[in-house]
Amino acid sequence: MTTEQIDGVTVTTQANVYFDGKCVSHRITLADGTRKSVGVILPAQLTFETAAPEIMECVAGSCEWRLKGQAAWTTSRAGDKFSVPGSSSFEIRVTEPYHYICHFG
Amino acid sequence: MTTEQIDGVTVTTQANVYFDGKCVSHRITLADGTRKSVGVILPAQLTFETAAPEIMECVAGSCEWRLKGQAAWTTSRAGDKFSVPGSSSFEIRVTEPYHYICHFG
Repeated sequence: MTTEQIDGVTVTTQANVYFDGKCVSHRITLADGTRKSVGVILPAQLTFETAAPEIMECVAGSCEWRLKGQAAWTTSRAGDKFSVPGSSSFEIRVTEPYHYICHFG
Repeated sequence: MTTEQIDGVTVTTQANVYFDGKCVSHRITLADGTRKSVGVILPAQLTFETAAPEIMECVAGSCEWRLKGQAAWTTSRAGDKFSVPGSSSFEIRVTEPYHYICHFG
């Protein structure tokens, strides 16, 4: 099931722009203080470093991803999630815009 | 004064991607049903068509803009707003990411 919207949030109006705009996200904060971000990755192959653990939830489009040290790519489509450990990295390759929610912690 | 965050909104998780990603926005809906979007325009010169009237509020970065039929460009920086009539268009040129809130109606 795809999370089409999230209710009762505070949105930070300034976007986060990564990789010259290949990744753009907006931070949201839930009523209980939980922070997430909603974003999109445009066609590219990128490597992201993690500080805290992250869960990447696809809401539209698709990507292929692999964790640091993995050889094989896995496809993620709308409704799919994958988890990334903290203090690590993952690669993502995108051929159509990949829309996501990033859950931290 | 700059609007750094907006509280109590529903965010649509799928972004709107325009002009091959030169403009990316997320739609938000306030408790009273009012719709806005928060977005960013990356370095480019673009022409946007309007359906409803819009107020563009800069929250970070800057742009230059002119309404349809205008010769002169006006600079908009954090805290500035400009209004665009409905069923019209405006041009925008950006040399550093222009972060905005778009208010409709």
